[in-house]
Amino acid sequence: MSIDNRLAELGITIPQPAAPVASYVPAVESNGLLHISGQISVNEDGNLILGRLGEDMTLERGTAAARRCGIMLIAQMKAALGSLDRVERIVKLGAFVNSAPSFTDQPKVANGASELMQEVFGELGRHARSAVGVPVLPLGVAVEIDAIVAVKP
Amino acid sequence: MSIDNRLAELGITIPQPAAPVASYVPAVESNGLLHISGQISVNEDGNLILGRLGEDMTLERGTAAARRCGIMLIAQMKAALGSLDRVERIVKLGAFVNSAPSFTDQPKVANGASELMQEVFGELGRHARSAVGVPVLPLGVAVEIDAIVAVKP
Amino acid sequence: MSIDNRLAELGITIPQPAAPVASYVPAVESNGLLHISGQISVNEDGNLILGRLGEDMTLERGTAAARRCGIMLIAQMKAALGSLDRVERIVKLGAFVNSAPSFTDQPKVANGASELMQEVFGELGRHARSAVGVPVLPLGVAVEIDAIVAVKP
Repeated sequence: MSIDNRLAELGITIPQPAAPVASYVPAVESNGLLHISGQISVNEDGNLILGRLGEDMTLERGTAAARRCGIMLIAQMKAALGSLDRVERIVKLGAFVNSAPSFTDQPKVANGASELMQEVFGELGRHARSAVGVPVLPLGVAVEIDAIVAVKP
Repeated sequence: MSIDNRLAELGITIPQPAAPVASYVPAVESNGLLHISGQISVNEDGNLILGRLGEDMTLERGTAAARRCGIMLIAQMKAALGSLDRVERIVKLGAFVNSAPSFTDQPKVANGASELMQEVFGELGRHARSAVGVPVLPLGVAVEIDAIVAVKP
Repeated sequence: MSIDNRLAELGITIPQPAAPVASYVPAVESNGLLHISGQISVNEDGNLILGRLGEDMTLERGTAAARRCGIMLIAQMKAALGSLDRVERIVKLGAFVNSAPSFTDQPKVANGASELMQEVFGELGRHARSAVGVPVLPLGVAVEIDAIVAVKP
């Protein structure tokens, strides 16, 4: 089954990928790896998902924000590769979670993106990951996630 | 000399690698590079090394925590590669140090892992690195470090 | 035109690259990719550019600090590769901005380095990027940026 069909089966709509907020590009393919720029949390309507975990945002909403970052990452893969069937493996996610100093559930938040990758890509979606707290993110968003993806030629 | 013999000579015991805290995998090998998930500071007994540098943890204990992250990274290399002799080069460490805003010795902390890599792998252990402060880490640990390792086929 | 000529045309002087602050190396080339250690903000005189955005440093000075990190990255590329003409593509920049919790313009700060890469390398300088806030950086500097560069054999 193609990844596009799998997305349809899951009821996941891949939006237009976000244009970079600044003077860089969304993704660069080189030496078999696609490096994707950090994707910030944006909801289905294109509005920023703002907030800080442990302060003004629940774990549940943070996890949903991370899932949205994952959807934006998939949107960038599709734009960069032409077809999602060129994804050979999701290699690494780097998750940055806007966190109050007392909030220590960054892994649960990042799972929103990690579980999405496995739903969509199956075994190929199983990736390495780092997840850390940060005091603030661009524009005040709750989560930012970048990615490295191995691609078929 | 094999890396296992070198570890024995150094008196370093490599534990069972930690299972991921969440829905991802410890390491992914692709295109000659092994990307290893962020390893959090855990002591010899398997207990988390908690704390924040510049607040409730000394530099000395922070450096020891980073060394433990390095040992966990080596444990993941061994599990992923079968043999540590498949390590071609430690390419990059990414060190995240749980830091009070006044603590600026992240490089000294991260040296705990960097010096370990040179002890164990010699010239092949000399790596690029970034080291930054973060306000909080998963489960409240003191240090998290991820890695990129070049591997022999 | 060679990159050295382009730098001369732009009036950009590439300094001696910084020695690592600690026990690691400035850059590692492997599998077609050069991973460069995080470069901290240092001015033309070799003095650290200290400060925290949103607290004691303006956006303009922060952007200039990021540009200096970019110049140090180019200095490391030159030292590691022999010639800057071996740069095939700037693949990824990872920008860490010393930020008060209320400061959300990390992308504008990081543009100081991103725009430099495009000025110097043209199309080959267009890169993927992540930019996040951190509460503190080594030695108290304002910005730290690491990089991945694709290189010609």
